[in-house]
Amino acid sequence: MSYKVDLNCDMGESFGAYQMGNDAEILNFVTSANIACGFHAGDPATMRKTVKMALDKNVGIGAHPGLQDLVGFGRRNMAISPQEAYDLTVYQIGALSGFVQAEGGRLQHVKAHGALYNMAAKNAVLSEAIAEAVYKIDPELILFGLSGSELVKAGEKVGLRTASEVFSDRTYQLDGSLTPRTEANALITDTDSALEQVIRMVKENKVKTLQNQDVELKAETICIHGDGVAALEFAESLSKSLSHAGITIQKVEEFI
Amino acid sequence: MSYKVDLNCDMGESFGAYQMGNDAEILNFVTSANIACGFHAGDPATMRKTVKMALDKNVGIGAHPGLQDLVGFGRRNMAISPQEAYDLTVYQIGALSGFVQAEGGRLQHVKAHGALYNMAAKNAVLSEAIAEAVYKIDPELILFGLSGSELVKAGEKVGLRTASEVFSDRTYQLDGSLTPRTEANALITDTDSALEQVIRMVKENKVKTLQNQDVELKAETICIHGDGVAALEFAESLSKSLSHAGITIQKVEEFI
Amino acid sequence: MSYKVDLNCDMGESFGAYQMGNDAEILNFVTSANIACGFHAGDPATMRKTVKMALDKNVGIGAHPGLQDLVGFGRRNMAISPQEAYDLTVYQIGALSGFVQAEGGRLQHVKAHGALYNMAAKNAVLSEAIAEAVYKIDPELILFGLSGSELVKAGEKVGLRTASEVFSDRTYQLDGSLTPRTEANALITDTDSALEQVIRMVKENKVKTLQNQDVELKAETICIHGDGVAALEFAESLSKSLSHAGITIQKVEEFI
Amino acid sequence: MSYKVDLNCDMGESFGAYQMGNDAEILNFVTSANIACGFHAGDPATMRKTVKMALDKNVGIGAHPGLQDLVGFGRRNMAISPQEAYDLTVYQIGALSGFVQAEGGRLQHVKAHGALYNMAAKNAVLSEAIAEAVYKIDPELILFGLSGSELVKAGEKVGLRTASEVFSDRTYQLDGSLTPRTEANALITDTDSALEQVIRMVKENKVKTLQNQDVELKAETICIHGDGVAALEFAESLSKSLSHAGITIQKVEEFI
Repeated sequence: MSYKVDLNCDMGESFGAYQMGNDAEILNFVTSANIACGFHAGDPATMRKTVKMALDKNVGIGAHPGLQDLVGFGRRNMAISPQEAYDLTVYQIGALSGFVQAEGGRLQHVKAHGALYNMAAKNAVLSEAIAEAVYKIDPELILFGLSGSELVKAGEKVGLRTASEVFSDRTYQLDGSLTPRTEANALITDTDSALEQVIRMVKENKVKTLQNQDVELKAETICIHGDGVAALEFAESLSKSLSHAGITIQKVEEFI
Repeated sequence: MSYKVDLNCDMGESFGAYQMGNDAEILNFVTSANIACGFHAGDPATMRKTVKMALDKNVGIGAHPGLQDLVGFGRRNMAISPQEAYDLTVYQIGALSGFVQAEGGRLQHVKAHGALYNMAAKNAVLSEAIAEAVYKIDPELILFGLSGSELVKAGEKVGLRTASEVFSDRTYQLDGSLTPRTEANALITDTDSALEQVIRMVKENKVKTLQNQDVELKAETICIHGDGVAALEFAESLSKSLSHAGITIQKVEEFI
Repeated sequence: MSYKVDLNCDMGESFGAYQMGNDAEILNFVTSANIACGFHAGDPATMRKTVKMALDKNVGIGAHPGLQDLVGFGRRNMAISPQEAYDLTVYQIGALSGFVQAEGGRLQHVKAHGALYNMAAKNAVLSEAIAEAVYKIDPELILFGLSGSELVKAGEKVGLRTASEVFSDRTYQLDGSLTPRTEANALITDTDSALEQVIRMVKENKVKTLQNQDVELKAETICIHGDGVAALEFAESLSKSLSHAGITIQKVEEFI
Repeated sequence: MSYKVDLNCDMGESFGAYQMGNDAEILNFVTSANIACGFHAGDPATMRKTVKMALDKNVGIGAHPGLQDLVGFGRRNMAISPQEAYDLTVYQIGALSGFVQAEGGRLQHVKAHGALYNMAAKNAVLSEAIAEAVYKIDPELILFGLSGSELVKAGEKVGLRTASEVFSDRTYQLDGSLTPRTEANALITDTDSALEQVIRMVKENKVKTLQNQDVELKAETICIHGDGVAALEFAESLSKSLSHAGITIQKVEEFI
């Protein structure tokens, strides 16, 4: 049996004079790039440059819409209505698409950012608004969402292809959700454990929860982080480990 | 001989709790709508609603990108680089296109707003950056610009269709430019004079300048204002006067 | 026995080219003005003008800090930390104080806006952060809060004078909270009922809840709305009714 | 004869998740800190932390107001009116003062940032608006400005103490202005030349221009940069060289 998985990373998060991330280098390891669209991070110049770099490296391009909260980096939950979620998703996908079109590329996917991603994961109505926004702009787009989340369900319901996402460096709960970052044991800091967890997720569709019991999930795309030297080293280790385990790393649109 | 002209108006300028303009009513008179894209005015919800209304009334939809100066309504000149002009144009056209696509419509044109429009009118390099942005997103788009301006020249140079714009309520200078608003006599406040001027511009391609000498121009689209009761009344008068003078008011893409 | 009450109104909510409210006229009726500070509404020019007008009419000036959510008018709950609440409160009080000092005036009070006010009303920790911000800037400031709310308690705890606020046009719940606007019967639309309720609140410290039972509260300042013609008419009626009922309308700092 | 000079540095320029500068370390060398106020850089949390650090190290605190252009870091000229310059200066000084008061400190000075500083240097009307804003908030504040600039003149005219600023790493023109960064030879990259220039400016009130002729200036405060490792090393070298040359580095308010 052959295994395939996509590696994705948030990028294009610089803003004006502010630099963030190692986009140029991390693009050597990932197959999908989630590019910030100016609401929680990113600006027009950064978007243009990041789209160009991703196209040059044949990495799948995704819009990464977030809440309009620049100072909070889109990480603070906001009581937005489903209509507002729809509107900000359309706006941001559109804005990124402008640069993709101008560079002669094609948008592959959409992944919500931070608090928008997390709120939608547990909120069917919000998820449906986001999924509808994606579908109405282009029904060929792939919607990313936490494996088992409402976002994945909403994507399927509206008729989109979806990519179930897993995290290599986060621990899981019995209901398949991620342990909140506010709790101890939320993060897996040992590289070997992280690699082991992610390979099992891809090959067996299972993860051992903090409660020491397995839960099922689907690992179509793995989220990795792009900031810091450690991130690059981990990306390289992950890349090698996956290959070694017989797992092909491939752009999500090629196997979904 | 048959005469045709387009009527355009800025709209979608509301923002959050703030209302501006009479879009629903002014849409009954114009054939092209320049919709704000969130930088100088407008927000995602307003953009969605305005696009929908324009499509319902079969009005040509245009992106109306402006400088990122919400508190200044995009009216204050800023020393932006050509690259920055390119980037903010791509971003904003893209964002509006998102809503146009989601509603199943098609973007007709692009008209720069306020200070961006005015700076570009006299700046070839800035104009070329804007024209390139428009062309790279979609070479079928029509670029609006002041008749005789660098923007129109840049559009033609890059291979875009252009629409030369005239103003019914503004006076002109010998070089074909508008009298700056800071000067007396910048505005034509008498309705009959305004109507007379505009009809002559369409039929004879001429306007009498403040210096009492004619200059040539091209009147493919007439800009009208959308705010206030007087605006609606003027729109109606203009509409009637043009018809009466044998000038057909038509969406610009149908005759350019 | 003599009764005193303050009338307060949110104002200075215009932004750039966008006008909101009838500040000049409503200032004729109120004794305290809550002036927006630029995060949810308002801008430096509006703040300057509003401070000037309030001083001219001898109306008590209050800072009206809100969440940094201009497009949502500060009405959408956001998961901010107590430290973030402290910081945005200090920033906004400071900014308004700049204009008050420049005009030779003195700040009287602070009233949180919209979602910040509502979240704090039920959240002791958030309220304490806001109260601490106010106290550390100037312990002489008066903190406004919904009667019975955590904000009032936090103000007292930190050593501030507080003003308990009531609403003339809102219905109340058994726990003394306002009926959420999302529910039917949240608003009192009949002017006479509203006037009756407010007079009873001031004189008897009681209000009849939607559950038809009385609850106790304290009515030191009454919030009125400033937008629309009806608002002005209501302000005038309220002013007359209170006088008629033997209640003196007075700036809150004069009797607290 | 005894010589005194102040060392100032821009800081507090981080924003949300974005880090900029080495404020904690550069504060060991400077005697005055220009703290960003949220328009071109900085946010409430950064302002609070930076004010605290500066107070802890007994560094003079200055407000560093800039144009409202976050994505452009306040470096792009904008056609603002004198009234707008006044308003944004009052707002930002006020906001920073909030944190200074809350921490029990006192504001020492005001230095305009980037494009605002540069535009004002050559524009008397703009400078007078800024100087008036500073004076009306607190006539004890010290206004920083390029030596010989309109800003210094406007400060003196309105009755403020001023501090004439020089740059160690920039070359000068015959009229006393800085060589624009867009030109070659704008920067002095050799440390020894920079140190030599600055010592001569303090001791002799002269600088050799690019045209190889001396111009007179006044060196009351020296601007140094805070970003990067080289900045810290230069700060240390400058500090040593000034001491060695018999020049006391001291907070500007202590000798002006």
